[in-house]
Amino acid sequence: MAIKGELLIGGESYQGGGKPFFAIQQATGERLGDAFHGAMPADVEKALALAWDAFSTYRETTLAARAVFLESIATNIMDVGDALVTTASAETGLPKGRIEGERARTVGQLRLFAKEVREGRFQELRVDPADPERMPTAKPDLKLRNVPLGPVAVFGSSNFPLAFSVAGGDTASALAAGCPVIVKAHSAHPGTSELVGRAVQKAVADSGLAPGVFGLLFDAGFEVGQALVADHRIRAVGFTGSRRGGLALMEIASRRKQPIPVFAEMSSINPVIVFPSALASRGAEIAKEFIASLTLGAGQFCTNPGLVLVAEGQGLDAFLDTAATQIAEAAAQTMLTAGICDAFRHGTARLESKPSVTVVGRGKAGTELEGQAVLFSTTGSALLGDPELQDEIFGAASLVVRCADHAELEHVLSSLEGQLTIALHIDEADFDMAKPLIPTLELLAGRLLVNGFGTGVEVSPAMVHGGPYPATSDGRSTSVGTMAIFRFLRPVSYQDFPAPLAPSVFGSR
Amino acid sequence: MAIKGELLIGGESYQGGGKPFFAIQQATGERLGDAFHGAMPADVEKALALAWDAFSTYRETTLAARAVFLESIATNIMDVGDALVTTASAETGLPKGRIEGERARTVGQLRLFAKEVREGRFQELRVDPADPERMPTAKPDLKLRNVPLGPVAVFGSSNFPLAFSVAGGDTASALAAGCPVIVKAHSAHPGTSELVGRAVQKAVADSGLAPGVFGLLFDAGFEVGQALVADHRIRAVGFTGSRRGGLALMEIASRRKQPIPVFAEMSSINPVIVFPSALASRGAEIAKEFIASLTLGAGQFCTNPGLVLVAEGQGLDAFLDTAATQIAEAAAQTMLTAGICDAFRHGTARLESKPSVTVVGRGKAGTELEGQAVLFSTTGSALLGDPELQDEIFGAASLVVRCADHAELEHVLSSLEGQLTIALHIDEADFDMAKPLIPTLELLAGRLLVNGFGTGVEVSPAMVHGGPYPATSDGRSTSVGTMAIFRFLRPVSYQDFPAPLAPSVFGSR
Repeated sequence: MAIKGELLIGGESYQGGGKPFFAIQQATGERLGDAFHGAMPADVEKALALAWDAFSTYRETTLAARAVFLESIATNIMDVGDALVTTASAETGLPKGRIEGERARTVGQLRLFAKEVREGRFQELRVDPADPERMPTAKPDLKLRNVPLGPVAVFGSSNFPLAFSVAGGDTASALAAGCPVIVKAHSAHPGTSELVGRAVQKAVADSGLAPGVFGLLFDAGFEVGQALVADHRIRAVGFTGSRRGGLALMEIASRRKQPIPVFAEMSSINPVIVFPSALASRGAEIAKEFIASLTLGAGQFCTNPGLVLVAEGQGLDAFLDTAATQIAEAAAQTMLTAGICDAFRHGTARLESKPSVTVVGRGKAGTELEGQAVLFSTTGSALLGDPELQDEIFGAASLVVRCADHAELEHVLSSLEGQLTIALHIDEADFDMAKPLIPTLELLAGRLLVNGFGTGVEVSPAMVHGGPYPATSDGRSTSVGTMAIFRFLRPVSYQDFPAPLAPSVFGSR
Repeated sequence: MAIKGELLIGGESYQGGGKPFFAIQQATGERLGDAFHGAMPADVEKALALAWDAFSTYRETTLAARAVFLESIATNIMDVGDALVTTASAETGLPKGRIEGERARTVGQLRLFAKEVREGRFQELRVDPADPERMPTAKPDLKLRNVPLGPVAVFGSSNFPLAFSVAGGDTASALAAGCPVIVKAHSAHPGTSELVGRAVQKAVADSGLAPGVFGLLFDAGFEVGQALVADHRIRAVGFTGSRRGGLALMEIASRRKQPIPVFAEMSSINPVIVFPSALASRGAEIAKEFIASLTLGAGQFCTNPGLVLVAEGQGLDAFLDTAATQIAEAAAQTMLTAGICDAFRHGTARLESKPSVTVVGRGKAGTELEGQAVLFSTTGSALLGDPELQDEIFGAASLVVRCADHAELEHVLSSLEGQLTIALHIDEADFDMAKPLIPTLELLAGRLLVNGFGTGVEVSPAMVHGGPYPATSDGRSTSVGTMAIFRFLRPVSYQDFPAPLAPSVFGSR
């Protein structure tokens, strides 16, 4: 499959008439290949019309056919071969090994949703039979099932060119639910997007599905995404990105004649709490793991540990000393885009300029396109007094909050915004102190973890990658794991339906 | 239990300092008893502080204890005895028989949620065990459960003084989920609200729960409701009422620092489609059932059949003639409030003033406080040209849309807004024509029914009382039936939790 800078609309591919832009070799800042062209309004309209048209047949596919389709996307992605790894690595600056791991995760995710579709539990079939003899009124026959919402607009993220992009979790779960998908590719990895998009498009054709089941649109700006979210044929939105971007889409969706749900995964600083006994017994060890997690992938994870809460006490100096030593060893890493690198530099400079903030340590300096890891510290009372200290800095930067005591730490916790994850570092001797905090933590985050870090999100039926606002726009949802499918479904009740009219899933009942 | 016009806050009851207002004997327009007083900001604050405080213990109650609490509310409501029936009937103008039926439904609903709580499936427990040997990375242990969102603000509806009010479906499902509830009583039935509120308050005390688990506030205006929805301690809202009211609450909720879900059941005209063969074979019979459903309870149901779609053909005249004859027999009925009666009169007058609309028939005229049933007709092309013809008129008014043919009927259908219900009147000979419409209907409504009318909403695990906007604010939810509990829950994932820290529901696993 070749990269031609083309939109994928229905079964066709052609160059858009919109503004040209280029894929960038992130490590050098140089252009990679020919221009990509943004979609024009007519292209967006065509993709929408085809998606709406495809919905009527795609939603009626058998579970088996839909599962085979998802598996065939996975196979086709693997079939792209090394070109995909090379392209994604060049466009993102992420090492090939990381891309290979992410590809495995992406195809595994598609296969997991295929399994979920085959098992069919997501349909939530319920049958409550009639009772004509019931007094004072006869009881009707009721059947319930989940139906798909309709075409879904998916916005590829910058930081996961495969797993949260063209054929990532949002697309996989929407397709599994029976919803056609139109992807607005992230302009930071257009070649990767096109390669994966062609793999999906081929699966649509091979499976004999209506071509509008999938579309891929490019745009260097925001118009295409805004047009998608505003259109009446789009019935839900999946987004992973900045808080500003997510809020803008939520605003558009809420102003529609018929508002639609926007599932936006936006911003989180993923607090890490180090408890006294763990700090005393293995503060240095925790610091090592922390810096490793912080600097992984240039810190460009939504689950990156951006805040460490710890009460003054034995081991804190060892923790900070080790963290400083470790981070000093951290190589500068190419960031996903020049813009992200700029934002990282500005965010860390702004934090450093705060009188209440001191630098614990820094990683090695790098080029203009590389992020230099940095660890700050402040006090609990400073954090309580300045909400800006909670702002997410996307990249390898974190803030250690030295709390005067456990009471202040609890106070700081209760001042935090919603989060994707909260990690507890605890020894058995800390359990009595940790246990009463857990109900508070449950209100703050979608995932709580013990003696680990949030980076590395398992694709599992028991995973929640979500959390209260502003971590996501809807804290009752997850964008990773099989529960993600429920975002794109709604229940319908069928009362007194004769068998020939009832949905066939209720067939013989 | 006496009616004292008092707020119920925590374990206490006292008169608010706000504006006085009176319960009205709807049939006569006269005042019933002494004044009720609205809550002042300090009262609202007290209820909120107590609810937040109670949340920490209430959410941790055992399933058995919570179920017993719900059952004890049901018992206490029955124990109020005939005073409740008399009061509710006087305040709403609804006949005693209807109130008794609604009371049975309300306590049945509480008992059904008690059963649902005991069974515990709503917790959605999921366990995905660790695999330390997995390559390339060890698999963590993941457990998932649903947790309650937090205190819920419930707005009593005008038209169901028991089943969608102080201890109605919203309150029952929120309490079942583990959320404290603060009810803003509907000012049209304050005495009923106080009696039921005292029954709930007594159940809280008898069950030894924190008193803030339940609060009841009065207000003649909007300030109390607005303050509740804007407060950070309220984490979700249940509302049944007008579209204007629902939209206002959605707006307040979305402007909060942390937006919260508003489950508003707002407006629906519940289309009825009469198919050709059914029309020809039994048009008159359908007309009789239709007028009976339309005029039930003065038409004051969210599921009232406000629109009838039918194609020109054999039987249409018989249908309209019978409908005209039947409605002429319909007695005028006291409406819920003078304001609702006014709005009904204005709505029907506005519809009648449209050149494209003709009057098919009218019920008997009544007093100033009674609604006179009325049936209008128009054409399919007129409806397509004037969206105002779709506006809900709350009360016994309906519009028959004479479509030129089935194609125009399909066109009209596709122009409709989201609905709670759509009813199909069909004979076997119509199945081939009806079947291809069903996917369209599934996108339009939460409940589809055959050869019946939407009034009479079964409280069932397979019920959906919800539907796409503007029928409700969130078409993925239901406010009737056991699935209603899921509105007030969100999933949390626990990674690598040692047994002593994991939620006890995972106990021995």
